[in-house]
Amino acid sequence: MFRKIIDFCSKNGFLKVVEYSSLNVFELKIGPPGALLQENLRREWLDNLVHSKDICVFYNYNDFKHCYDYARSLMFQTVPIGIVEILPSKKQSFIDVEKINICGTDEKTNNFADYFMNDYRLIYTMFVAPSMANQFFHQIQRQRKIWWRKISASPGRYSLSDIQNGNNLADSQYSVNIESKYTWGNHILETISLFSKNHTGLCNADLMVKDGKKQVPAVYIKCETRLSNLLLNSLCDAYEEPVIQSEKRPLFRFHRKVAPYKISFSATLPKSELLDELQDLTTYLSKLLRNNNITTLLIAENVKKTLEAQYRQYDELGIPYTVVLNEATLRDGIAWLRNRDTTLKEQVHVADLVSYVEKIYKHF
Amino acid sequence: MFRKIIDFCSKNGFLKVVEYSSLNVFELKIGPPGALLQENLRREWLDNLVHSKDICVFYNYNDFKHCYDYARSLMFQTVPIGIVEILPSKKQSFIDVEKINICGTDEKTNNFADYFMNDYRLIYTMFVAPSMANQFFHQIQRQRKIWWRKISASPGRYSLSDIQNGNNLADSQYSVNIESKYTWGNHILETISLFSKNHTGLCNADLMVKDGKKQVPAVYIKCETRLSNLLLNSLCDAYEEPVIQSEKRPLFRFHRKVAPYKISFSATLPKSELLDELQDLTTYLSKLLRNNNITTLLIAENVKKTLEAQYRQYDELGIPYTVVLNEATLRDGIAWLRNRDTTLKEQVHVADLVSYVEKIYKHF
Repeated sequence: MFRKIIDFCSKNGFLKVVEYSSLNVFELKIGPPGALLQENLRREWLDNLVHSKDICVFYNYNDFKHCYDYARSLMFQTVPIGIVEILPSKKQSFIDVEKINICGTDEKTNNFADYFMNDYRLIYTMFVAPSMANQFFHQIQRQRKIWWRKISASPGRYSLSDIQNGNNLADSQYSVNIESKYTWGNHILETISLFSKNHTGLCNADLMVKDGKKQVPAVYIKCETRLSNLLLNSLCDAYEEPVIQSEKRPLFRFHRKVAPYKISFSATLPKSELLDELQDLTTYLSKLLRNNNITTLLIAENVKKTLEAQYRQYDELGIPYTVVLNEATLRDGIAWLRNRDTTLKEQVHVADLVSYVEKIYKHF
Repeated sequence: MFRKIIDFCSKNGFLKVVEYSSLNVFELKIGPPGALLQENLRREWLDNLVHSKDICVFYNYNDFKHCYDYARSLMFQTVPIGIVEILPSKKQSFIDVEKINICGTDEKTNNFADYFMNDYRLIYTMFVAPSMANQFFHQIQRQRKIWWRKISASPGRYSLSDIQNGNNLADSQYSVNIESKYTWGNHILETISLFSKNHTGLCNADLMVKDGKKQVPAVYIKCETRLSNLLLNSLCDAYEEPVIQSEKRPLFRFHRKVAPYKISFSATLPKSELLDELQDLTTYLSKLLRNNNITTLLIAENVKKTLEAQYRQYDELGIPYTVVLNEATLRDGIAWLRNRDTTLKEQVHVADLVSYVEKIYKHF
């Protein structure tokens, strides 16, 4: 099943599969709609943390200590303080066959990031007073699980592993994984660990913060995932095979907030003399939507395909809504908005289209 | 003057200056508010191109030919097709003193990207039919210049250089720079080149596209800039030294769309028994705004500073608006919204604050 999804991703341009048949492994590269999806997931991850309700979060670009010192001084040595980072990470080799080829192994948990060579580590570190450590550790577990569920097509898939006593090497006291469950096994998506000392790059004096009137050494909680994890989990999570007219029609049910394209266009027209006019209208509507930061897919030549073939293509790209236009639209301005998930169409006047679509995407 | 701005950036955490005094050069690292600013600029650049009005733009992540083939096949071999890329770029050495130390050289144009070690190349490539090459070449120059002006505090600063005949090595026919003008000289921000053949990574057969009924080899236009260019230009562009009460008060007049923080909070209160209540209200308002994806800076301890000191700090961080609360706010719900650029305050009821702020940031 996993390999079937990968091939479907490949067919629709989300991924490119590079086979190393002699090693019985494959590497994944990212195609254009996959890149848009990944960009949307990256922004959701970052915004969710930067706009964190309760604590001030700072964005570290390339100097952790500088970022921490800045945050600590700005906040008058009070905690909690959060730091987000997106760090490039390149795999050194690609030869660990056992690990990479999950289809057919009996291991309980796997990691989506194993299939990608160039990747980014997404890290959120929260410094808290020792007296608050347990409270924040449990709160962040809940918050991160909610985040994974929020952008998912099957929220029930996500769960927290048992709390493990940390390994001594990394000096973490406790750690927990967020996992997603698939028919072929569980995948580890994110690891959340509580550390009580020895932050790489910070000395113990750096960690001193105010807790009420006292000075105490801060402890920290680290949530780490990978950009490729977000991407490949999102693809597997959204994959479905609904039966339409007694035929399996695989598609992606991306959450509308992260879907690579928000709106596509279908036009059909029997009389060719009105074709130019209809295409002008379609182009105009697409421009209006793009002006409002709504990503559209507009393929002028698709008018030659049947409506069914167009819908199928858009469903396979996981586009949540398609604007359907025809001859009548030129006469009275009525278009239809087709919903990917229900396959139902509702009427909407072209004059109201942009504000209606904006409303759909704003309240998600 | 350039060095003065750099030091001001450093004081406020946007940049960190690493001096190599023996070489008489410095390297710049990026601090937390600088990282947020850079992230906003990155998104503006990407969204502006992906939501390009007239042509379909595809996002290449790590395989140019795959992206191009996908785009060409999806669009039925028709052009124009656009491709955006954000590619990591690491400088090999850091020793070219002459080039790096712009303060004091007589060179006419300089490059902000010279000061950064790890950087990203931002590239937009547009494939067009040869018959349309000149039209698109001029159109994209205008569009890119408009983009730089749109997010600037001083739009008059930006200009296009003369068109140069391309150098033969890179096989570009013509190229143009977008430059920004400062008191210490001009900086090259972006280079726009028209190429007629030899795309690295594509063979001539790949370039064949439809032009009406004919098959012709596409030509391409490439716009290249750097992420660090966007950042350092934005900092220099927004720096100003207005005189307030016969004192120079340097600040950043960031465009509100790219400002790292959108809203800050100032509270003052003579009676300490209401302090907790006022801080609860401030925290609540900050949460509401963050829930609506508006980045706020909330420093609870700032209540100990004078209002003037708080305003100065927020102006130096380039925060466009500050919500001012006091004892009266607790009584009747009236707060004030202080505008960084006019220093004027307008009344706003706390119940309307979020929708009012949203409106300000939506229509920019």
